[in-house]
Amino acid sequence: MQIYNAPLRDMRFVLNELHQDDGFGNLPAYADITPDLTEAVLEEAARLCQNVLLPLNRSGDEEGCHFEAGKVTTPKGFVEAYRQFVEGGWNALVTPPEWGGQGLPEAVGKLVEEMICATNVSFSLYPGLTNGAIAALTVYANDALKQAYLPKMVSGQWTGSMCLTEAHCGTDLGMLRTKAEPVGDGSFKLSGAKIFISAGEHDLTENIIHLVLARLPDAPKGVKGISLFLVPKFLPDAAGNPATANGVTCAAIEHKMGIKASATCQMLFDGAVGWLVGEPNRGLEAMFTMMNAERVGVGIQGLGIGEAAYQSAVWYAKDRVQGRALSGVKRPDLAADPIIMHPDVRRMLMTMRAYNEGCRALSGWVARALDAEKHGGDAETRERAADLVALMTPVVKALFTDLGLESASLAVQTYGGHGFIRESGVEQYMRDARIAMIYEGTNGIQALDLIGRKMPAFMGRYLRSFFHPVSNFIEANAGESPIAPMVAGLKRAFETLQGATSVIAQRALKDPEEAGAAASDFLRLIGLVALAYCFAKSAKIAAQRLAEGTAEAAFYTAKIQTATFFYDRLLPQTVACFFAIKSGKGSTMAMDEAAF
Amino acid sequence: MQIYNAPLRDMRFVLNELHQDDGFGNLPAYADITPDLTEAVLEEAARLCQNVLLPLNRSGDEEGCHFEAGKVTTPKGFVEAYRQFVEGGWNALVTPPEWGGQGLPEAVGKLVEEMICATNVSFSLYPGLTNGAIAALTVYANDALKQAYLPKMVSGQWTGSMCLTEAHCGTDLGMLRTKAEPVGDGSFKLSGAKIFISAGEHDLTENIIHLVLARLPDAPKGVKGISLFLVPKFLPDAAGNPATANGVTCAAIEHKMGIKASATCQMLFDGAVGWLVGEPNRGLEAMFTMMNAERVGVGIQGLGIGEAAYQSAVWYAKDRVQGRALSGVKRPDLAADPIIMHPDVRRMLMTMRAYNEGCRALSGWVARALDAEKHGGDAETRERAADLVALMTPVVKALFTDLGLESASLAVQTYGGHGFIRESGVEQYMRDARIAMIYEGTNGIQALDLIGRKMPAFMGRYLRSFFHPVSNFIEANAGESPIAPMVAGLKRAFETLQGATSVIAQRALKDPEEAGAAASDFLRLIGLVALAYCFAKSAKIAAQRLAEGTAEAAFYTAKIQTATFFYDRLLPQTVACFFAIKSGKGSTMAMDEAAF
Repeated sequence: MQIYNAPLRDMRFVLNELHQDDGFGNLPAYADITPDLTEAVLEEAARLCQNVLLPLNRSGDEEGCHFEAGKVTTPKGFVEAYRQFVEGGWNALVTPPEWGGQGLPEAVGKLVEEMICATNVSFSLYPGLTNGAIAALTVYANDALKQAYLPKMVSGQWTGSMCLTEAHCGTDLGMLRTKAEPVGDGSFKLSGAKIFISAGEHDLTENIIHLVLARLPDAPKGVKGISLFLVPKFLPDAAGNPATANGVTCAAIEHKMGIKASATCQMLFDGAVGWLVGEPNRGLEAMFTMMNAERVGVGIQGLGIGEAAYQSAVWYAKDRVQGRALSGVKRPDLAADPIIMHPDVRRMLMTMRAYNEGCRALSGWVARALDAEKHGGDAETRERAADLVALMTPVVKALFTDLGLESASLAVQTYGGHGFIRESGVEQYMRDARIAMIYEGTNGIQALDLIGRKMPAFMGRYLRSFFHPVSNFIEANAGESPIAPMVAGLKRAFETLQGATSVIAQRALKDPEEAGAAASDFLRLIGLVALAYCFAKSAKIAAQRLAEGTAEAAFYTAKIQTATFFYDRLLPQTVACFFAIKSGKGSTMAMDEAAF
Repeated sequence: MQIYNAPLRDMRFVLNELHQDDGFGNLPAYADITPDLTEAVLEEAARLCQNVLLPLNRSGDEEGCHFEAGKVTTPKGFVEAYRQFVEGGWNALVTPPEWGGQGLPEAVGKLVEEMICATNVSFSLYPGLTNGAIAALTVYANDALKQAYLPKMVSGQWTGSMCLTEAHCGTDLGMLRTKAEPVGDGSFKLSGAKIFISAGEHDLTENIIHLVLARLPDAPKGVKGISLFLVPKFLPDAAGNPATANGVTCAAIEHKMGIKASATCQMLFDGAVGWLVGEPNRGLEAMFTMMNAERVGVGIQGLGIGEAAYQSAVWYAKDRVQGRALSGVKRPDLAADPIIMHPDVRRMLMTMRAYNEGCRALSGWVARALDAEKHGGDAETRERAADLVALMTPVVKALFTDLGLESASLAVQTYGGHGFIRESGVEQYMRDARIAMIYEGTNGIQALDLIGRKMPAFMGRYLRSFFHPVSNFIEANAGESPIAPMVAGLKRAFETLQGATSVIAQRALKDPEEAGAAASDFLRLIGLVALAYCFAKSAKIAAQRLAEGTAEAAFYTAKIQTATFFYDRLLPQTVACFFAIKSGKGSTMAMDEAAF
């Protein structure tokens, strides 16, 4: 059964307790955003997600999207749910007030995103892509475009799409062929075919604003010849209302493993009218503005599904009775004990729980950095925040989505045979989670971004935005303390990470394939150390609260237990990553292509 | 694209080269089974699987099974494929000649099973369950039942099913409620409802023979009150032909994540006529005869899907061009280089390859033990073989199926966005692979079987059937040799395994929950060491062949490269398993049930 209650207590912990000492401070831009306000926002979001989005999750998966004669019909209930979503102002939660947004911090927005993804990841993709498009337009579009499009995209009256991939190129956008011919009046005519366009066509809004990568006639080859264009489904009239159908159509939607209620469209541009966004041939830069915003969001999808999978598994493990506890009968009133008594079931539940809480803590830190990057009080803070965001974006995207699939699979396993049956709802989590490891740059590409771009940037400056807080924490907590064993564990894992970093740094200078061969293991290693850091901080706070005396002893005790489990049973993966990295590219690259 | 070419060269390596020194010898029972004969069998099986079963794999997944008014219709092509399967004698490959079987060794049979599972795991479940039923009947049924049912089940004219699970009990069969009332003439009337019955109903054969667990009226509670009954769909007439419809019907089929072409049935027994198989109240014993045979078979499903996923991924990685190799342009004739040039793609392909070759090698050894258990020349050999089978059955079942899903997921990742689209065929591998971790005893149950029953049995005698060959190999190869680094790696991993074994043995005596908390990590640990042992042996043989000079240098070179990759990048997982085991049950069991 798909169960979800927004983990509000843990969200408040991440939002208000965990990262207060991270040096990003309480930003003046958010001075009016009181804890009471954020609390009300989170509670209202939880209600929407639990009452409106969750009930459409399984039915949307069963029904899927319909395609006929160029039109996409979303599953039953989606139109009404989207209307409620927009009317509640949820689309505009974190967008800038100058375009009608509510301007809440990302630290709140990412928690709301987690709830949306936990309850209906397919639904999340309709408004989700809009935000990336808004981010790009805000930075790169001229005033006329901003005025014409941003207010309606911010409110959610219109949605956005990101049209990058073509059949022959996804990762390697340098090969893209879609063309943009200047008309002479400042507009362009675009022609080409795009695939895998989420929300490229649907029935939720009266207009859809496509951001399209294409080549100008005189463009240089490769990625340096790509420009970004805004192409609306309907061209607005003088009053700004959708009026004339543009030359862009949906040719088909894909049949997919999961996220079946999300329309994944093949889009045809046939002399479609568009306008340049940003400089000619600088489209990739603008695209990365969208992409980076989306990548953190995709990571949150993994976390959201992981949390939903965990809760659904806990419900079943408490409900299902089977066998007797190894330590003796626990429920003599029942024919058998609930399976949550069995150590191997506990192992699965605790693994999911630890991954979810760890990821939530880390994304809470990254969200604060996203806010400080924009609104930090001084240049040093803004730079340090931007560095952490740059470093952690691929980690959040890839690690969280890997762990989301692992958690979904553990939920299926907890259900046994019943988990493989569609009616249980948990197998959907596996199918929905799988795409997040692929889109917005595969997890392999994230690992290459981390090791090839982020690690060496500015002589390791991005890395230091993470390494410094960790080493400071270890130093500050090296003495006697209730969390001393955890600090010792963090120290060992951090030394492993430093060791791996230096091995890679030395080898990659001589041979970039060495970096490529180490990339995925390095991403997992740094990601696990980041979760370990968040857990050690969490446990420290929890231990303090418990020592002071608190009415919430159960919450803080569970926090320490989850952290301990992570250190005991999950963090040791770092050692395996390190050995794999240390072995170098040799055995990975040795085999002749013909021998495969 | 779903690609499959039976890996005949590697199969011959496993069959004829790798395990010749394992002490199970060349069995007199198989003296007529020449290498030429087995070669012909494997080639013919490959043709059937590639030409008949593979083309029905995707279409069967798309179409699924149909259910109407108690009748199941299998997807288009399945009836004809099953006819060819039976006519070719494939159902009777390893069954005893006294019942019409061909009596080939399991060492050949398991390779053929791998091909069948690689090309159509849904199809494999129609004949697959029959073999478990045959195994139970051969041992436990009386002569009249054997005469009436075995010949037609062996030929494949009739199929068998295993009716164990009920809605409220899967793992904990002690709770089952299906009743069997004696009629007085030696037969019984069975009443009850079973779920998750693979091939419980279908249109491939004129009759289906259900082996059903049920309780006699005076049966003790729990697992000691379960008996096994044979219940045919149609009662045979005097001539042995199906004549009278029995009181057993299919009430529904399940909607599942995968294996959609396999009918998973809810079966209703309403006064159905059946006969006792074996002693009253000893049904569990007979069931384990079926179950153990099936468990190795389910492990092979993981391997088969893993191999198909690997081959499909290799095809795509050679075909798809995207980006340039980090070491410089490799294919200037193309717009980009094939993605197989990229280290992170290589990592994925090599991981799949190493898991597959390792599992094939290990199952080849276990298959030889299955043969030696029955036909070994002396009691000592038979016992040693039986010990290895007992120990390795849960390992093969759980490790292979875990790795099968990992490989299928890596294949999807290799395809990127295209892998998430149903037409690619690789997402089906993930969905089909997922069930194998659950049925015939979840992988958690396998781990408990390993650690709770197999490890302590006879003061560790089962364990010694594996530990002795490994330590002998390490000792015999400790000196200078081309595989010296691998032997050193095996030694370290083996010491880790021994360390984990002694930690568990000490703690579990005092507290069975300690064993439960360690079980899954221990299974993976011993499984990885078993693959490492097989790889070291393989590499040794390959190095010898290369030193002697061989026309097949490419094969043996690749074997060493794959083994090296396994040691470099996959075997280090053992260290993480060891740390998790060493941490004990504490943090796994600490949390209050209410805190979940």
